[in-house]
This record gives sequence, structure tokens and C-alpha cells, in this order.
Amino acid sequence: MENSIGVFDSGLGGLTVLKELARVLPSERFIYLGDTARVPYGGKSAETIIRYSMEIANYLIRTHDIKLLVVACNTASSLALPTMRRIYKIPVVGMVDPCVRRAAALRRKSNIGVIGTLGTIRSAAYEKALLAAVSSVKVRSVSCPLLASLVEEGWTDNDITRAVIAEYLSPFRSDPPDALILGCTHYPVLKKAIREFIGEETILIDSGEEAAAVVDILLSETMTRSKKKSRKVEFLVTDDPERFGRIGKRFFGREIRGVRLATLQE
Amino acid sequence: MENSIGVFDSGLGGLTVLKELARVLPSERFIYLGDTARVPYGGKSAETIIRYSMEIANYLIRTHDIKLLVVACNTASSLALPTMRRIYKIPVVGMVDPCVRRAAALRRKSNIGVIGTLGTIRSAAYEKALLAAVSSVKVRSVSCPLLASLVEEGWTDNDITRAVIAEYLSPFRSDPPDALILGCTHYPVLKKAIREFIGEETILIDSGEEAAAVVDILLSETMTRSKKKSRKVEFLVTDDPERFGRIGKRFFGREIRGVRLATLQE
Repeated sequence: MENSIGVFDSGLGGLTVLKELARVLPSERFIYLGDTARVPYGGKSAETIIRYSMEIANYLIRTHDIKLLVVACNTASSLALPTMRRIYKIPVVGMVDPCVRRAAALRRKSNIGVIGTLGTIRSAAYEKALLAAVSSVKVRSVSCPLLASLVEEGWTDNDITRAVIAEYLSPFRSDPPDALILGCTHYPVLKKAIREFIGEETILIDSGEEAAAVVDILLSETMTRSKKKSRKVEFLVTDDPERFGRIGKRFFGREIRGVRLATLQE
Repeated sequence: MENSIGVFDSGLGGLTVLKELARVLPSERFIYLGDTARVPYGGKSAETIIRYSMEIANYLIRTHDIKLLVVACNTASSLALPTMRRIYKIPVVGMVDPCVRRAAALRRKSNIGVIGTLGTIRSAAYEKALLAAVSSVKVRSVSCPLLASLVEEGWTDNDITRAVIAEYLSPFRSDPPDALILGCTHYPVLKKAIREFIGEETILIDSGEEAAAVVDILLSETMTRSKKKSRKVEFLVTDDPERFGRIGKRFFGREIRGVRLATLQE
């Protein structure tokens, strides 16, 4: 099978996941969709996020016959994944389970922090999964509503971003967790600033890295790995291809070319 | 005629306009729609904003037979108003012209500042209208992409908001304008912080106040003023009615009750 792997996010954040996927799986074809006409997802309701996620999944299956879908957005993973897994025949990989599996494999794991959007934290998806996977763990979850917006604006390393991080992460200051799950795909680009604030002792868990490892295993197990020699990455957005390419470069780590507009609704 | 006046915005910001409308027109009925499922509008393309604005206008005309529509969003006013005025039979009042008319009526007006979203500033709608209305005026426009998001999060008066304002408004520091147009309906709730930064000499122009005066004149001139004794205000949102009511109170200045969900697309 030479079909593509579908990857979607509300906007730019999922590019940190795509970057890891492309690194780990150099022979695969990827089709990335950023829902920039409706970004951000973080503060919106479960009903709305489920509707948006399914519109995108339907579109990618119909137009690209994707063999696997990566929900490269923690908000959509937290709110829409159970519904999507009931509906779609193809495997749907989210961000929550891979991060929780990594936390459960740590040596020191009695004290785990989670940061994410309002929707992710309110869903308690991480908390429930961590409590089920790690015995006698203390989980502290903090929503950081503005962080994804700062990242979408490209403010990833200035005084204001550092002040916002200090404000949101202050509950972790006096008692740093053993590990902090970066529960939003926008946060890896803030890793340096988060590391500066939280100190060297805390392990930062990055959903992109963990999800890429899971996709690698799934492709092997289901014998759907590509037999091509070279990687191919296509980009779709629901609004303003030019801006996506320009700002996205910083998230993807290389040039983004040929971004096309996708029309989800008829 | 006892039909309602329609008012819409991407989210909460338009409530600052509705507040002025309700104050100036105490006998009218208002139907407010906040497009919270797709907020914010500020960074999205003209095509997308025109589509969203027309979906909302079509919906309000079809379901409420509104007699006049107020586009209580500067981004939509800057990008969609010309198209909407060509299409709709009812009067469509935007935010740009009322602000420009006020600036043109000032005594000191050689140096006008405009702040707004990326979409509003990039459209140059204010700049063009000011240059046409005020002779030998110097216009300085600055986009403040994150301010509306801060306001939607309810961060209206903390150190981070003051730092963001200082960052965006720094071009005005050394040479304060005669007047500063608050070219986004989210900004009036930041008036105190903006005033602190820019000083006492600059006149702040608030689109809600100016638009309410224009609507008042229009209703009189077209003989469509309500003959009822009491005001009525209804609220619709495209996502999460509970959150809108809770945060919106601060913008509208009084309790917001009975917010209902509107489904724009079938």
C-alpha cells in the first residue's frame, strides 16, 4: 500500500508532530491539514471539536484515501478520539495515550504535571489515563489558554511569552514534577522557555515524539509501511496558505512549499 | 415596524457595541450573534471573513427578519462591508466610517493612530477612509494580533496585558497621536490600560459609541424606530453558551441570560 498518512491540527502546532513523523518514517507520504479558518480549538466545546475533527477526517479519507490518521492536536485527541475510533475503519492515533505510555515507563513518576488548552484540561483525558496507567501517581493539570495563540502569532521567545509561561506554570515552581507532559502540540516550540522556568530535573514529554514511535509500531504490525524510497509531504489549510508557509517553517524546521487551500464544506 | 436590530461579532467584543446601542436606543429589540465556534477573526483571510459574515447575515435575516445589521467587528467591517452593502437590502452599519467621521470632526487631527487586528490593519480600510476625509493627516496604523485573544480570555487588567499593550503601542510612545482609533470592538475593555500607556493628551475613539450614534440617525431617517416601550436583547452563539454568558457580563456591563446556540450551516 502506498497511501498517505493523514495528519491534522487546528493550525501550526501539529507541524511539530509531523516533523517527528517525517524523521522517524522517511519513506512515507504525509498529507497535513491545518484548520486555520477555525483556529484555535483550545477554548471551544466538545461538540464543536468533534464536528470539526470529523469534517477533516471525512475529507482526508474521501480525497486522499489515507491509510492512518494522526490527530496531531491534543484538544481534538482529548475530546474527539473515542468517537472517531468508533466510526472510522482506519487506525486513528491521538496524542494522549502515547504521552501516558511514556510517563508510565519512567523510573521516577510519582508526580506528573500536565499542561494544555482549556478543552484538554477540562476533559481530564490525561488525568484519567495517568491514574489508570501509573499506580499512586499525583497528577497536577494546568490549562494555559493563551500559549497556543502566542505560538500561532510566532511569539515563541520574547519577554511576554516568558511572563505568560511564568504565570501559568507558577503552581509547579515550588514543587517541580518528575515529568511534565506538554499536552498541546504547540508547546514543543516553547520547550526552551519552559525548561528555563521549570529547571533541569523535570522530564519534558513531547507528544510528537511519542506519537511518531506509536505510528512506527502500528505500520509495522499492520504491514502497511510504504515501500517507496522517498518521503513526500503535502500541506492543506482551510485559510491563507501564504501565512501558513511563512510561519510554519519555524515549527516544521524546513521550508514549507506548495500549501493548498482545502474546502471542507460544500 | 417592530423588527429587531441584528448585531454580530466573532465573539465577545461586539458586546461593547451592543452596550452602547442599548443605552442610546432604549426602545429597540436587539439580536446579538457571537461566532464563538470560529473566533478570532483577526488573523483570517478576507475570503474567509466575507464567507463567515454572509453566513451570519443570511441567518439573522432568515430567522429574525432583522431591519438593520450592525457589523460589530472591525475586521469584518474592514473586509466584508463593501460586499455586504452590495448584496443586502437592509442597511448594514460597520465600525470604520463612524470612527473616521468622529476623527474628521475633531479640532486637532493632524496625527491619527489606528490599532486593530492583522486583518483590519492589512486591509488599510481606516487609512484610506481617513486620507479621504481629513486633509493632510498623518495616519499611523499598528496591528495588535494578540489583544483580542487576551480579551476573549478575560485577561483585561493584569501585568501581562499591560506588557503586551506597551509592546504593541511603543511606536506611539515618543510622539502620541491627537487621536487613537480603537479599531477593534474588543479594545474598549482595555481603555484604562491603553490610557495609562498613551497618556492624557490623546483622544480615544471607541467604535461602539460612534456606531450607536450612526444607527440612531439611520432609524430616525428611515422611520424604522421601534414604537415599543421597552428594550429587549437576545443572545445567540455558535459555541458554548455558558462560557459566553459568564465572561460576556464584563463586556456588556450587566447579566447575560438565556444565551442560545445557533446552527449556521445545515
